[in-house]
Amino acid sequence: MEYKPPLKDMKFVLDELLDVNEMTSFPGYEEASIDMMEMILEELGEGAIRSWLPLNKIGDQEGCKFDNGKVTTPSGFKEVYRQTCESGQASLSCEIEHGGQGLPQVLEMAVNEMACSTNLSLAIYFTLARAAYDTVMSHGSEEMKELYLPKLASGEWGGTMCLTEPHCGTDLGIIKTRAEPIKDGTYKVTGTKMFISSGEHDLTDNIIHLVLAKLPGAPKGTRGISMILVPKFIPKEDGTNGERNSLSCGSIEHKMGVKGSATCVMNYDGATGWIVGEPNKGLEYMFTMMNRERIAVGLTGIGLGEISYQNALLYAKERIQGRDLKGAKNPDEEADPIIVHPDVRRMLMRMRCLVEGGRAMVLWAAKVHDMSLKHPDAKKRKEAGELLEMLTPIVKAFLTDAGSEICNIGIHVYGGHGYIQEHGMEQLIRDARIGTIWEGTNGIQAMDLAGRKMPMHTGRFLRRFFHPILEFIDENKNDEEMKEFIEPFSKGVKGLQKTTLYLAQKGLGNPYEIGAGAYDYLQQFGYVTMGYLWAKMAKIALSKKDEDVFYRNKIISARFFFERMFSQTISHAVAIASGSKTTMAIDSEDF
Amino acid sequence: MEYKPPLKDMKFVLDELLDVNEMTSFPGYEEASIDMMEMILEELGEGAIRSWLPLNKIGDQEGCKFDNGKVTTPSGFKEVYRQTCESGQASLSCEIEHGGQGLPQVLEMAVNEMACSTNLSLAIYFTLARAAYDTVMSHGSEEMKELYLPKLASGEWGGTMCLTEPHCGTDLGIIKTRAEPIKDGTYKVTGTKMFISSGEHDLTDNIIHLVLAKLPGAPKGTRGISMILVPKFIPKEDGTNGERNSLSCGSIEHKMGVKGSATCVMNYDGATGWIVGEPNKGLEYMFTMMNRERIAVGLTGIGLGEISYQNALLYAKERIQGRDLKGAKNPDEEADPIIVHPDVRRMLMRMRCLVEGGRAMVLWAAKVHDMSLKHPDAKKRKEAGELLEMLTPIVKAFLTDAGSEICNIGIHVYGGHGYIQEHGMEQLIRDARIGTIWEGTNGIQAMDLAGRKMPMHTGRFLRRFFHPILEFIDENKNDEEMKEFIEPFSKGVKGLQKTTLYLAQKGLGNPYEIGAGAYDYLQQFGYVTMGYLWAKMAKIALSKKDEDVFYRNKIISARFFFERMFSQTISHAVAIASGSKTTMAIDSEDF
Repeated sequence: MEYKPPLKDMKFVLDELLDVNEMTSFPGYEEASIDMMEMILEELGEGAIRSWLPLNKIGDQEGCKFDNGKVTTPSGFKEVYRQTCESGQASLSCEIEHGGQGLPQVLEMAVNEMACSTNLSLAIYFTLARAAYDTVMSHGSEEMKELYLPKLASGEWGGTMCLTEPHCGTDLGIIKTRAEPIKDGTYKVTGTKMFISSGEHDLTDNIIHLVLAKLPGAPKGTRGISMILVPKFIPKEDGTNGERNSLSCGSIEHKMGVKGSATCVMNYDGATGWIVGEPNKGLEYMFTMMNRERIAVGLTGIGLGEISYQNALLYAKERIQGRDLKGAKNPDEEADPIIVHPDVRRMLMRMRCLVEGGRAMVLWAAKVHDMSLKHPDAKKRKEAGELLEMLTPIVKAFLTDAGSEICNIGIHVYGGHGYIQEHGMEQLIRDARIGTIWEGTNGIQAMDLAGRKMPMHTGRFLRRFFHPILEFIDENKNDEEMKEFIEPFSKGVKGLQKTTLYLAQKGLGNPYEIGAGAYDYLQQFGYVTMGYLWAKMAKIALSKKDEDVFYRNKIISARFFFERMFSQTISHAVAIASGSKTTMAIDSEDF
Repeated sequence: MEYKPPLKDMKFVLDELLDVNEMTSFPGYEEASIDMMEMILEELGEGAIRSWLPLNKIGDQEGCKFDNGKVTTPSGFKEVYRQTCESGQASLSCEIEHGGQGLPQVLEMAVNEMACSTNLSLAIYFTLARAAYDTVMSHGSEEMKELYLPKLASGEWGGTMCLTEPHCGTDLGIIKTRAEPIKDGTYKVTGTKMFISSGEHDLTDNIIHLVLAKLPGAPKGTRGISMILVPKFIPKEDGTNGERNSLSCGSIEHKMGVKGSATCVMNYDGATGWIVGEPNKGLEYMFTMMNRERIAVGLTGIGLGEISYQNALLYAKERIQGRDLKGAKNPDEEADPIIVHPDVRRMLMRMRCLVEGGRAMVLWAAKVHDMSLKHPDAKKRKEAGELLEMLTPIVKAFLTDAGSEICNIGIHVYGGHGYIQEHGMEQLIRDARIGTIWEGTNGIQAMDLAGRKMPMHTGRFLRRFFHPILEFIDENKNDEEMKEFIEPFSKGVKGLQKTTLYLAQKGLGNPYEIGAGAYDYLQQFGYVTMGYLWAKMAKIALSKKDEDVFYRNKIISARFFFERMFSQTISHAVAIASGSKTTMAIDSEDF
């Protein structure tokens, strides 16, 4: 399996599509010029090839080992983990006061794409610690921040998010884990959590668990959940490890993929913990983190898709089989490379459009995130935050579905050779499959979009999305060269507006309408979002088409997207318009 | 993982939709009444639950073991293989003179569905032997038939089809394996074959390889391929094993799924073989077998889809999480079963429509196959044969794509629990994934449909498909109750006719048009084919809707199919109409 960081395309997206350089005017981002970003991407990209990629198959084959509460990560993970921490990769966007580099989210996402491409299992250990950092940063006390954040930023300590229990995942209102307050201000945490990524492992000296639990007398349901920080070793004041806490890993899961990532059952037996923020606000805090994570999960689809695409392309150029339908391309050989076959090209073009369109989507969302954090104008920060809320479920669900699809096509390009483990293509499907499930299944994302974000503030969040798009259409509708993109795109946007109106109206009287249409709505929304970015990319590329074949290919890809993929919006619209009646018609018992 | 043979639905399809009982008037099928078929399905269904299913996970976990040329199948496979042979399941449709039961293909396919549901890896050993039986039956000499067929029918000996070589799979014209004629009429076969299912294993005393090879001086390409029968042990005249032949298994593949099925590299080192039929006709013979196999591969998608659906449904009824959007269904419990959620129902309905529609498709094709073999009227036999040629690539590709989709949805219903190995849902995806690749990738099926079958005999094959459909529409267009099905369906048929015309015309001047449109064409064709069967099933169910909830649910499923799934035909039509230009636009080197 080979990999080349897609630096040229990343630069195109960061610089030409998103103009991230404008963020150097944001307080705190003064240093984050596009040149600096490129330098960092180049350097860390080399590490991804040199250190991360060679461990990817090893991680899949060895998996994590569990022995009497101890978890051993696959060979080599420990060393590369340490190297990666030393490179500063783990703390790119952490605060400077905690030893981080204070760089933009958008850069961190671009770096993470390379991590996901080359070793998703290893990436997960970093992502979880980073999520714990964010949560403590946003909601922890000053003392807590001082004690934990530098170690989480440096990667010396790991972190987890402990939400799921055996009987509940999506429905956190019914968790059973309890936290009893003790006189000294600490809590005793008791309960069992499952599907805890990085719950136990040998990469770090300590692991900081953020555990959702119920305090005595807490309100029922989601309004009665608190967040307790429970370290594996209780840190002394000087930051060194003290006493072992009464928590343990009961077992690890044997999974379809991401086998190098330890997925743990965690038992808390009166473990000592400290409350994060206020009681009963745990779920709210968890969502600060969750939203960031959802963008990062969407990214995994693109990271895995990218390496699948790169290898499918190499294979299609090398494997000879059959002849060009218009006559031999390779008359001196027994056969032509399979890239001559239109159906192989259809597959490659589809992969390409999803990967490049997806990269644009996720980096756009990350820049919007940066704007919501650092834009000097408070109004702009708020608006960006609202747009980010809209984009989050779409990026998460649409791009993980896309990731699965891309990796599936990747196998198909390889034929039988894709199905055997040797070439690594099948691992990508297995690794990609988790993205559609965790941090809220894609069905939950769809409900978040259609049931929460859409109606929010009588459509204000929606307008944050539609206004710039309608403006863009308006600006370009008389541009002859843009016509082939703007015409289908504006039809797609109108279709989405119509569907939105339909769901908003029908949903008022019948919530099943929202539920039955949600998944198709998210898909339709995803195609329109990606269509917006493809239309914008086409616009830039048209102005530079004489400069480089890169731009000419961008135009062709944009064309392929609108000609051959964008019509999915129609099918989804038709499905939504059929309503919920048939979906709900069969009695549960009669199924 | 649980499984209940879908006997009620099978009976509905066999009896009410397909009226297989009419075949009792075909010479040779006199005994094959629907009652007898039901009895056999019931009995063999019990074996599938009792013996096959418990080995499915074991097969996946242990896999096959290779040691110095020997292959050991997973624990228990040998015993269940023998039991299954004793039950007569292996020889249902083999000729009575060879110890078979002379029963219809359509019954065998229904039985095979249960085998695929409960243990695809084990089923593959039988399928391959059955394919070898068919090929020798159709093309072997009388002597060869007498010696080999009874043993292949009984399952005492296994069989293989040796096509692929390391450098070629799809493009068999460039195989390198050689067969040298010897004075005694035998051949010495030399070469390496790969991806040989059941190439070596411990289930049978002997294995009969049908090897594609080139004779000295054979014409170049596919017209110079012969078929040589090469037994592992050279049988003595009394049918007992004689000398060990000079062939060996070099290794087995480590695959994504079907791990209990041995996939072998086979080395022939001057192995003794006998030619099947005439020289240079090997590929033609292989296609006799291949077409039968392609229907059987389509079936695997439905078998795996069925068990995935059954378990997803059970889980959706048991797992409690969240509340019905219209108020608690289960007020005494902490939450409602997830089947109350519209999006979970959307998933279940989609699985259901694909499984039931797919079952109807594959059994229809199998009945058409029976008619092509046994109908007393030669003209009807020929017509059925032509229709079967049309249906074959559609059944193979559309239903294996559907199988992968269904199993993917199945995981999603389980959420995180679907991703861990314990529940068996993820194995189904891995096992299903091979179906889209082998016996000709789905891309190749699409080319077979659009490039070969469509234009064949100036559209005569196409008319075999369209005529009965147009008649059906005509008969029902004034039926008020059928309107909701006939209206969208007839639009879909018109769309397919339009696309067909487009491809036929454009393809004349530019073969890339066929290639670039083929995959979407097959998908569009698949939806229309399934739509035909759903419309017919709705018609039957409408007439019996007061009898049983089974029929009322059929009507709802048909409605769901047309309301929510059939609009895919539009997207595919749009994609095809965009032509090949963009797909072929990027230079190979510039990708």
